[in-house]
Amino acid sequence: MSQAETDHSSVTPGARFLAEIHEQPAALERLLAHEDEIARAAELAIRRDARLIRLVGHGSSDNAASFGIYAFGLLPRWTAMRDAITLTVHYDTPLDMSGSTVIGLSQSGQTPDVVEYVVRARAAGALTIAVTNDPSAELARAAEVAIPLATGPELAVAATKTYVNTLAVLALLAGHLAGRGAELSDGIRRAGDQLADVLPSLERAAAGIALPFAYTGRMFVIGRGVEFATAREIALKLLETCRVAAEPLTATDLAHGPVAALDPLFPVWAIASPDATLAPVQEAAARARAMGATLVASGTAASELEGAAYSLPVPAPVPQLLSPLLSVVPGQLFAWALSRARGLDPDAPHGLAKVTLAR
Amino acid sequence: MSQAETDHSSVTPGARFLAEIHEQPAALERLLAHEDEIARAAELAIRRDARLIRLVGHGSSDNAASFGIYAFGLLPRWTAMRDAITLTVHYDTPLDMSGSTVIGLSQSGQTPDVVEYVVRARAAGALTIAVTNDPSAELARAAEVAIPLATGPELAVAATKTYVNTLAVLALLAGHLAGRGAELSDGIRRAGDQLADVLPSLERAAAGIALPFAYTGRMFVIGRGVEFATAREIALKLLETCRVAAEPLTATDLAHGPVAALDPLFPVWAIASPDATLAPVQEAAARARAMGATLVASGTAASELEGAAYSLPVPAPVPQLLSPLLSVVPGQLFAWALSRARGLDPDAPHGLAKVTLAR
Repeated sequence: MSQAETDHSSVTPGARFLAEIHEQPAALERLLAHEDEIARAAELAIRRDARLIRLVGHGSSDNAASFGIYAFGLLPRWTAMRDAITLTVHYDTPLDMSGSTVIGLSQSGQTPDVVEYVVRARAAGALTIAVTNDPSAELARAAEVAIPLATGPELAVAATKTYVNTLAVLALLAGHLAGRGAELSDGIRRAGDQLADVLPSLERAAAGIALPFAYTGRMFVIGRGVEFATAREIALKLLETCRVAAEPLTATDLAHGPVAALDPLFPVWAIASPDATLAPVQEAAARARAMGATLVASGTAASELEGAAYSLPVPAPVPQLLSPLLSVVPGQLFAWALSRARGLDPDAPHGLAKVTLAR
Repeated sequence: MSQAETDHSSVTPGARFLAEIHEQPAALERLLAHEDEIARAAELAIRRDARLIRLVGHGSSDNAASFGIYAFGLLPRWTAMRDAITLTVHYDTPLDMSGSTVIGLSQSGQTPDVVEYVVRARAAGALTIAVTNDPSAELARAAEVAIPLATGPELAVAATKTYVNTLAVLALLAGHLAGRGAELSDGIRRAGDQLADVLPSLERAAAGIALPFAYTGRMFVIGRGVEFATAREIALKLLETCRVAAEPLTATDLAHGPVAALDPLFPVWAIASPDATLAPVQEAAARARAMGATLVASGTAASELEGAAYSLPVPAPVPQLLSPLLSVVPGQLFAWALSRARGLDPDAPHGLAKVTLAR
């Protein structure tokens, strides 16, 4: 049992969620012990020339898939997509999947339509890889290759360490496909260290800014490129643990309609990266402020967003592609603090179970 | 000038938006005059064996792309995806696009990153097709093939007839790729007739139920499969014309977290189709009701959703794939009525321009 697990008793509402947020650096370290398995999966994909990556998952797993699109695009320059599960599973459409690598993402390994998709994709000629926290689960048995998330048990309903480790699996797999596995595993190890260093001060900072949002009913969370996954995941944490109607948007899509809904009681959380997406995110943040919205700036380039009422920056990892491993954490901690400020229990939100068996 | 354009003076707020909703059957008819151009684009894609479809657009165009995934999957059984514009345009990633057909979607034909994506995709070996309402626009010149939306001018900021005609272009193109062009063009013509028949009663029904939502701040809009595009487009209409924080979700993703945010003041709009997605949508609707949420049922199988407080059904087209051409219209009319009930002008929402040049 880790130090963090010892420190946070499960009696206090939110103690599990907070403990698991703090366990993320250790969980990343545990994952790196499985790098060989990830490297072998990459070798197999190269040998089969299965260069179209089809990612499938729901909730946090699907959010991590949004990061996968960039990891596979930027490292081996393979095209990756979040595939339409319904087309294969519900509409029973036989697609030719030779030349595809399917990556099924599920913390529990039990998500019914993800399992069913993987079974059908394998029969249709795809190389199938399961990424799950339970190597004995149905998803792991259905796929040709199983990669463990290796976080140890995740007990809070809202995913934290399984999300971050899913990002790390996708980054490592993409790194090995590009012949850059060692660079990525070093980067992940260092990102874990950076996260461990910054977690105590981040927790204080997030708790310090949550209170003014106690009566907030709605929010937009904005990111672009590699940080769109972060926007989706932070919005999901706010929805499930704080009952805030939080919607993720790319910086550009904000301008294509949703900006019209903003007002001073409709805050915007923006995640900024110091890359070519910074200018569009800055533009979107300025547009939100022009509508009177309160701005929360986060990400590794949080300081580059003018007019932010609150700022939750994180250190920059190397390579920069790994920034979502760090930039989601202020959102997790903010969700924990806001949930507690609202008298909710983020460990067990009303209406949710840890394993979702919805079709 | 059509009858509808004559009837609705632009002096009344919302008159343009309502007029354009009513012009949709005529706009579909005008598009069918361009079927030969669509058939030639399909021939070219087949000749080039460019079987991976990459769809790019923002806002309503991107929502229509969600329908394209199913049209290309169900008819020619080709894989289609909403591609990551940022990867190509902002991160400057050279992907191999030989074997891909790129479809750039933009009402104005001016969306900067869509134009830039198409330019780069063409240089990277893709067959490029522009779908725009302005055949002289930059997007049309950048692509190898240009298909007109042919709706006539769309003046309200919130898209209506250009959205429905984009769906029709994608369905026709997919139909021609599958050797089923005539079936699809007949289906679109009949769907236009069905829409014309039902529009007067739909307008009355939508106006009749909008008032109880006058103070609603947030909503989920649920669809799955072909109707996920409809969920996205209705949510966008509510955001931009009514300032409701409306978030689209697949039926299954609702259960993976967001359901926890629901309460009696957080209504859910569900779109039901009489196909294999009906059971998941019914499950999601029941889950929403269990949280106390008010349920609005729409779609061709609206009557199959139990416990709906309000129902806005539409007739079923043939083939059923075309149902999104009809099922979006109750949402458009509801948005028009709710916007007016709130004293807003849906023709010109605050903070938006008709042509969005955001990066």
